[in-house]
Amino acid sequence: MTGIALLTVPTADPGDTRPFDILTETGYRTDDLVSVIGKTEGNGCVNDFSRGLAAAIWEPRIPDAAVTVFSGGTEGVLSPHVNLFVRDEQRYPGFDRGLVAAARRSRPLDPAEIGRAAQVDTVAGTVGKLLAELGVTAGDVHLVLVKCPLLTSDSIAALYAAGQTPVATDTYASMGCSRAASSLGIAVALGECDRETALDALAGEAGVWSARASASAGAELDDCHILVIAESPTAANPLRAVHGHMADAIDLAAVQQLLDRVAAEGGTVRQIFAKAEADPAGSVRGLRHTMLTDSDINATRHARAAVGGVLAALKGDGAVYVSGGAEHQGPPGGGGITVIYELPTPDRNDAR
Amino acid sequence: MTGIALLTVPTADPGDTRPFDILTETGYRTDDLVSVIGKTEGNGCVNDFSRGLAAAIWEPRIPDAAVTVFSGGTEGVLSPHVNLFVRDEQRYPGFDRGLVAAARRSRPLDPAEIGRAAQVDTVAGTVGKLLAELGVTAGDVHLVLVKCPLLTSDSIAALYAAGQTPVATDTYASMGCSRAASSLGIAVALGECDRETALDALAGEAGVWSARASASAGAELDDCHILVIAESPTAANPLRAVHGHMADAIDLAAVQQLLDRVAAEGGTVRQIFAKAEADPAGSVRGLRHTMLTDSDINATRHARAAVGGVLAALKGDGAVYVSGGAEHQGPPGGGGITVIYELPTPDRNDAR
Amino acid sequence: MTGIALLTVPTADPGDTRPFDILTETGYRTDDLVSVIGKTEGNGCVNDFSRGLAAAIWEPRIPDAAVTVFSGGTEGVLSPHVNLFVRDEQRYPGFDRGLVAAARRSRPLDPAEIGRAAQVDTVAGTVGKLLAELGVTAGDVHLVLVKCPLLTSDSIAALYAAGQTPVATDTYASMGCSRAASSLGIAVALGECDRETALDALAGEAGVWSARASASAGAELDDCHILVIAESPTAANPLRAVHGHMADAIDLAAVQQLLDRVAAEGGTVRQIFAKAEADPAGSVRGLRHTMLTDSDINATRHARAAVGGVLAALKGDGAVYVSGGAEHQGPPGGGGITVIYELPTPDRNDAR
Amino acid sequence: MTGIALLTVPTADPGDTRPFDILTETGYRTDDLVSVIGKTEGNGCVNDFSRGLAAAIWEPRIPDAAVTVFSGGTEGVLSPHVNLFVRDEQRYPGFDRGLVAAARRSRPLDPAEIGRAAQVDTVAGTVGKLLAELGVTAGDVHLVLVKCPLLTSDSIAALYAAGQTPVATDTYASMGCSRAASSLGIAVALGECDRETALDALAGEAGVWSARASASAGAELDDCHILVIAESPTAANPLRAVHGHMADAIDLAAVQQLLDRVAAEGGTVRQIFAKAEADPAGSVRGLRHTMLTDSDINATRHARAAVGGVLAALKGDGAVYVSGGAEHQGPPGGGGITVIYELPTPDRNDAR
Repeated sequence: MTGIALLTVPTADPGDTRPFDILTETGYRTDDLVSVIGKTEGNGCVNDFSRGLAAAIWEPRIPDAAVTVFSGGTEGVLSPHVNLFVRDEQRYPGFDRGLVAAARRSRPLDPAEIGRAAQVDTVAGTVGKLLAELGVTAGDVHLVLVKCPLLTSDSIAALYAAGQTPVATDTYASMGCSRAASSLGIAVALGECDRETALDALAGEAGVWSARASASAGAELDDCHILVIAESPTAANPLRAVHGHMADAIDLAAVQQLLDRVAAEGGTVRQIFAKAEADPAGSVRGLRHTMLTDSDINATRHARAAVGGVLAALKGDGAVYVSGGAEHQGPPGGGGITVIYELPTPDRNDAR
Repeated sequence: MTGIALLTVPTADPGDTRPFDILTETGYRTDDLVSVIGKTEGNGCVNDFSRGLAAAIWEPRIPDAAVTVFSGGTEGVLSPHVNLFVRDEQRYPGFDRGLVAAARRSRPLDPAEIGRAAQVDTVAGTVGKLLAELGVTAGDVHLVLVKCPLLTSDSIAALYAAGQTPVATDTYASMGCSRAASSLGIAVALGECDRETALDALAGEAGVWSARASASAGAELDDCHILVIAESPTAANPLRAVHGHMADAIDLAAVQQLLDRVAAEGGTVRQIFAKAEADPAGSVRGLRHTMLTDSDINATRHARAAVGGVLAALKGDGAVYVSGGAEHQGPPGGGGITVIYELPTPDRNDAR
Repeated sequence: MTGIALLTVPTADPGDTRPFDILTETGYRTDDLVSVIGKTEGNGCVNDFSRGLAAAIWEPRIPDAAVTVFSGGTEGVLSPHVNLFVRDEQRYPGFDRGLVAAARRSRPLDPAEIGRAAQVDTVAGTVGKLLAELGVTAGDVHLVLVKCPLLTSDSIAALYAAGQTPVATDTYASMGCSRAASSLGIAVALGECDRETALDALAGEAGVWSARASASAGAELDDCHILVIAESPTAANPLRAVHGHMADAIDLAAVQQLLDRVAAEGGTVRQIFAKAEADPAGSVRGLRHTMLTDSDINATRHARAAVGGVLAALKGDGAVYVSGGAEHQGPPGGGGITVIYELPTPDRNDAR
Repeated sequence: MTGIALLTVPTADPGDTRPFDILTETGYRTDDLVSVIGKTEGNGCVNDFSRGLAAAIWEPRIPDAAVTVFSGGTEGVLSPHVNLFVRDEQRYPGFDRGLVAAARRSRPLDPAEIGRAAQVDTVAGTVGKLLAELGVTAGDVHLVLVKCPLLTSDSIAALYAAGQTPVATDTYASMGCSRAASSLGIAVALGECDRETALDALAGEAGVWSARASASAGAELDDCHILVIAESPTAANPLRAVHGHMADAIDLAAVQQLLDRVAAEGGTVRQIFAKAEADPAGSVRGLRHTMLTDSDINATRHARAAVGGVLAALKGDGAVYVSGGAEHQGPPGGGGITVIYELPTPDRNDAR
């Protein structure tokens, strides 16, 4: 059981240490951190050192058991920030359930394993352990966030030198392969497909996806950082979540429906976690988009900017977590959405 | 009197000639064209040759009196297309008014005039002539679109060689100066401010803006192409327009309000013309954005992607006209919005 | 027999028509054009409309038999220009041989053929016809320039819809596949390898390359434009060429050696045609480069800028033809170099 | 007196700590560091977090008196590396003079001071102190490296809020203003111009420059980090330097001349420090370049790639220090060059 609280704190730059102060001022300690999920302001691609800088600041200061997930790219109106998930075992009066979270690092992946079955299995195994640790079932889970490694020029060259073949020869392309394997590992762990189907999907022969998977890749790590967020009766706090998916990048209705559910419960939106991608078919609702033919700006940057605009407009501010590259994390061209919200403190003793 | 019809046609690339076929198939002739307002898929900045390619295809084939305005940049979900405003003097039964439009080129601007009082005056003068030509007053106008020149390395060097000082030494920056002068010229012509205030605003000393101005700059022309769209009782067609402005890039409510007015009349949205810009203060609703500190992607590209996401999500498709760089075309960080819509054909003889 | 002259003319922009005037002023006619080989100033990648604009200006005005090759990308000190190869059958006194050239378009390639054996064969066949037309042998050839098609989002989607698999799912990656197939077709036609080896090389299983092949890809055509430049005793003009290759991007010595040969003959360098690429191993002479991990600028742009710097410094000006992406057009990380030069008019009757 | 040694060490990424090991393996201690001058692999512009990451790794580990200068941007063949200047007071037999170096931080600059007289004075003052500390005269100096702050969206907004006007409203443009002020401060300190002329130059009204100044700007600091490298008879080591300037970006001859001087002394090139910029006139030797009209890649990136190609080709590897933006650090379009080289150990007792 790990009841949690969530603090979303703007950052002045990737190396900003002000969030540590906020944490303290709010009454928590660094040791309470379960996970730091941040949006940093680099390009979100291979050479995004904003993620590395954030990691260099945060990693030495957080508990061994905690993980960071820094997702680069705050295109358009998106605003750099960190989401601090802190352990909060307090039983808030009037609540008989609440959000729980647990985090773990997987074993390091060999570059040859990236984007392949070994990564699927590794992620699935680690997510399985996290579910067990939390004492929740797959159905209780609202979101699984993964940060996973990518291939660099160096690791690609090393693989070839060792007589091995990398999953991709292009470093940017390797990010997609890694996200895909992580997401399919999540899908397996959540029982959304079996291992065989996941591997078929990885080979491009099956259309499996999990709307609760959110994977991003980075050069700043060689293992996978994984966070599971679920709802559990073992906790008692006002945080709740709903999840769904956008069918395409302009599926405002899907998000509105989730927000309506939040509003129906009197809840206040605390954060939206979303995946976004350029529709691989090259069009949205029958009209051509140019995200895949723009050789100046990578498609993930376009997708974050557009979906970020939609979500920031709905949330009312730009501190939204929109991560680019939604392979198997929603239908093609769309992406999973998890809204974390806070219920009002009940007036009466009615537990919620 | 120039009653118009509007055809919005997707383009396969900036040199696509298929829209000419569509025009013919729809029963119009090239000679009917009043203006071609297109979104092309380049970077929308100085070296955007998608605009030049589109101009090379369209300019030789349209009437002398017609003008093109190609605005580069279809970031995110925006979809390349052309909006063909064609003369349609037909009096549609059941309507006692309708949209009218007229277009003109200004005299060529000398590079030394770009971004300065001479450009304000030139644009104001040409817009004035167009109002007179249409027989409408400033209050009838819903949108004034301008395409205006920018400064290139060559013209900047030539100015210096001639002992003159360009309004900007950076070519990208000159686009903003040119858009500002054009927009203030429109504001003067529409009576939204006097000339003196406009010149103060150009000098950064006044906060004047017109939500009906939409200016974009390009290297492919040396004069200003101007189109005025207004509502007039001299026409009788089902097209109508409403205009307003987004207070910031995520001002979904302002757009929704315009769409609600359209819906209240039973109208169908035909096109949205919008301006977008990165808030010059570096933040949106108190949260920092990174559009102005991203040295890899110019701020206008970020702004189009984000606002394009919002508008495409509301319209339901990406063929929206979102133009970047909203100097004096809405409040700082926001931008003007004009929605063109079509009323249903009345069942009875009630003229609308 | 097609003796040629070469005019290298700077361009003010991709749509500049001033070179037509220069052509006339120099005493040639548009009908004399064998080929227009230009460097235009776009990104040189998928959405480079500077090539399309140049093609829109030149294609309607040149003879049916002539071909254009516009290679995008004038990074760094490279300067936009066109190289006009014009038919000049005049027998210049004192010369008993000279440069000849012939050009042709291949049949259109189906998107499914791009980057595959069919493209190798098509290019090889067309080059073969050109050699026959010129009456030269492979050994006489100094340069074969090809412009070939690429895959767009549209053509990729169409292939999938037809149950076919494109050679690449990424549009930028398809450029490399197309250049590779064209170059291997040239290698076959020049007898540098047999067809089987070429196909192995295309599959990544053989390291064949031709230093005389120069291929670039573009979205603005669906066939291959091919130009062969050779030396022949059937002509009598002062133009000559030498070719070689850079072993890597900083192989100044290899170029210097070619220039020394030119100088030894008293020749004047007229143009350098070069291919450049980021070393696929991720390093140059043992030191890491970052061209393949830079997600903001594509590797071909980096490579053109760097090699363009070297060659412009050696030539003394930036109007050098450096084309990016040297798959099978030189050793990995290097690229072919052809220097065209002009011999001085002999004082005596010694034919050269 | 601070005799120095120089270690140039490749880095695997901006956060690479391997150079610390190399330092130790070579027999030096971290405490010996006078300055760390690195090329990191970001965009070299405003949002280059590779500099910030490198600073986060190095700053806590070096002596208080040492300074770091991280210059972003390894475009083309440039290779990320650090140049470690270490104190080495050893008197090498056979030498009666040698290179010395000293470093210092200036006081923090207020954002309002950036790019203005206060920065000129601050830099001049600090350089003056360093000359005194080293006991050298201006004529002994071969290079003054400065890392100085820039304006961000935040600092610009703060200035306006305080009723002050920033030197530039564009963050990228502010980098140039800051480099200019630092360089003119160096020119004053080296007696290359008087203060009044420097301020005129800052106002664009004088063409003063110092070929020994090398300034780069970054968001990761608010003071100026300054390193002076000079030759002095108080030291006795084999390091020497020559300096000069490229008149334009392809001025190979100027660099060759310096290298010839090194060769004439039997020296081995250890490092080349160069400044590069896009010629502000828009052309190089009469031919147009497109670095200033490319809205996808900033001019500093183009310039580093091109000049980096030339210098890496001459040096024989890509670990060259080429810094972009050469305002007052060489003639317009050119840039200063300092070659550090090592003399052979003398066979006899002839002191050198």
